[in-house]
Amino acid sequence: MLRGMSSTSSARVPNFYAVIPAGGAGTRLWPLSRSGAPKFLHDLTGSGRSLIQATMDRIVPLAGESGVVVVTGVAHVDAVSAQLPEIDAQNLLAEPSPRDSMAAIGLAAAVLSERHGDVVIGSFAADQVIAGKESFEQAVREGVRAAEEGYVVTIGIAASRPSTAFGYIHSGEPLGLEGAQSARHVVGFTEKPDATTAQRYLATGEYRWNAGMFITRVSVLLDHLATQRPTLHAGLRTIAKAWDTPERDEVLAEVWPGLEKIAIDHAVAEPVADAGGVVVVPGNFGWDDVGDFNSLAALLPAADESGSKVLGDAGSVVRVQSAGSVVVPASGRVVTILGLDDVVVVDTPDALLVTTRARAQQVKDIVTELRERGMEELL
Amino acid sequence: MLRGMSSTSSARVPNFYAVIPAGGAGTRLWPLSRSGAPKFLHDLTGSGRSLIQATMDRIVPLAGESGVVVVTGVAHVDAVSAQLPEIDAQNLLAEPSPRDSMAAIGLAAAVLSERHGDVVIGSFAADQVIAGKESFEQAVREGVRAAEEGYVVTIGIAASRPSTAFGYIHSGEPLGLEGAQSARHVVGFTEKPDATTAQRYLATGEYRWNAGMFITRVSVLLDHLATQRPTLHAGLRTIAKAWDTPERDEVLAEVWPGLEKIAIDHAVAEPVADAGGVVVVPGNFGWDDVGDFNSLAALLPAADESGSKVLGDAGSVVRVQSAGSVVVPASGRVVTILGLDDVVVVDTPDALLVTTRARAQQVKDIVTELRERGMEELL
Repeated sequence: MLRGMSSTSSARVPNFYAVIPAGGAGTRLWPLSRSGAPKFLHDLTGSGRSLIQATMDRIVPLAGESGVVVVTGVAHVDAVSAQLPEIDAQNLLAEPSPRDSMAAIGLAAAVLSERHGDVVIGSFAADQVIAGKESFEQAVREGVRAAEEGYVVTIGIAASRPSTAFGYIHSGEPLGLEGAQSARHVVGFTEKPDATTAQRYLATGEYRWNAGMFITRVSVLLDHLATQRPTLHAGLRTIAKAWDTPERDEVLAEVWPGLEKIAIDHAVAEPVADAGGVVVVPGNFGWDDVGDFNSLAALLPAADESGSKVLGDAGSVVRVQSAGSVVVPASGRVVTILGLDDVVVVDTPDALLVTTRARAQQVKDIVTELRERGMEELL
Repeated sequence: MLRGMSSTSSARVPNFYAVIPAGGAGTRLWPLSRSGAPKFLHDLTGSGRSLIQATMDRIVPLAGESGVVVVTGVAHVDAVSAQLPEIDAQNLLAEPSPRDSMAAIGLAAAVLSERHGDVVIGSFAADQVIAGKESFEQAVREGVRAAEEGYVVTIGIAASRPSTAFGYIHSGEPLGLEGAQSARHVVGFTEKPDATTAQRYLATGEYRWNAGMFITRVSVLLDHLATQRPTLHAGLRTIAKAWDTPERDEVLAEVWPGLEKIAIDHAVAEPVADAGGVVVVPGNFGWDDVGDFNSLAALLPAADESGSKVLGDAGSVVRVQSAGSVVVPASGRVVTILGLDDVVVVDTPDALLVTTRARAQQVKDIVTELRERGMEELL
């Protein structure tokens, strides 16, 4: 019976398109992540696949290869194309400059609307790590079902700890929709909470992490956008109409720079949730946004009995009286550590970072310092 | 008057030869110091001169360029020759294998005895750092004067702290010799003491650090050696007789491997001191043996107001919320440190070391670990 269900649920989802926004600097993962080679282009789990490749692998069973659209900065088009040769050139949308997630996802929605009419899209960031293929697919299928009914759907991640690094989704009453049994109305979204608030959220059982995964009909998303941010909506519609024509570059050059920079959460999800138009489907898969070297550590197998983690060749790391370290030997050199616990060492061909797991969130301060010193070539 | 004395004392010392034993692995300074490029070949003070070059610079005013003999491993002859082009090839004595300081200094003494008769030699290790040229020269001049009288003379370094890393010289009554006014009889030598004992030594005012500097007539040294270690003495005499002949290699190959491995302190200085034959001249110059990265730090100027030290290009080191670090950026890469105090980072093209100043003495444990893993190419 279970086997039969699994077989049924492995089919492609009709009229479903996946959008992969591939942006973000990932400065907390410097010097591994650089402006020229951001986080999503790296294999951060030792799986042999970069984060964007793993995202593609995850979504193709649902959307098919031709049903995936990547939105990325013009500087990364070649790298993305090289890593994802299965993507059609027309499904690789290049942003002339970063305009935050609403413009990125809205552009994909508007272009897909022009091409395919009122399809359902799901947005899945290129730089997240997910464990549990079946659970992920199940959540997306339920999300698509609810999206077809006109809801903006978000997938809420089971909060395994009172994290202060993520926003939360407050879920309410069950939706009661066949095919989306676990979907619930969203009461509201929250910003990253303080520790006490996060603890309280967890205790209620009503809060889930917001992973920025949104599933919606393109017409629903664009109509909400037209209401909430009419100028941005108009700009994106204008660009989308020109996208598959010879006028694309001209229109992009004229319109894109003026687009409002705003996250999809603020532009659509939050106001629409207040109006009762957002539902959440629980995602019971493992999830991490690999925000820093400490969270990277959680995704790696232990390299020794001291709990040390290595991303790369563990044989090129030598530790003496050192526990809990996180080492990225990415320069081909041997990294040796003596008498330091919980240290982070990231060794790349032109730059070295030495810090501690507790300071992992502050690595962006090094990036700031390098910029202030004019060492842009390292960023 | 002082000016006149200084002028007088800047003359070369007649019949005086300097011996520079250039050996030692310097494993506590790995990965800067390697078996193929040991400590003495490196500029560890940022002066622009390696330790052996600085040793040469220091001794040439006293012994002249032709009066300096270097004893080093056969593997280092080319490097020493390149760093010290002013040394005659015949004054560069190559040891086929390490046989400790008695064999090294004894070989030089025996060869110089063959060449020049009963001259005075002074032995000055290639890997020490000395500040205070005038004080150094003054001590050597007094030492030579006492050596001419038949004493084995050692230069005792003013103990500036209760160090447990050095042996001590216990000084007794003044020698009362004109031209060596500050020389005193040596009561005895001590091994490296524990902290309490070192503190006690310091309190008496009678103890000085043993820097392994010995000044002696070659006949006196070799006669003591003949008494104390007759077999070693005979071997060295045999080799010295053949040294400047076509038989050198043959005799070396036959005799050298069997020579006893023993330090000059144990072979001669200690037993002769017990018999009243050793005197100490106080050296009131700054001295360090640069034993590890912590002592290296003491020799470097502060790179910033946090007390951090850099050996190399300070512009390629970026610290954020990090005080007291010791960084050696020797790979051309940028080294960044976030939120770690008193950390030691040594960055070379093929190996990186991350440790703390407190663990500096244990760096040899990393070398041991690398050897056990068969990573000999890094040693």
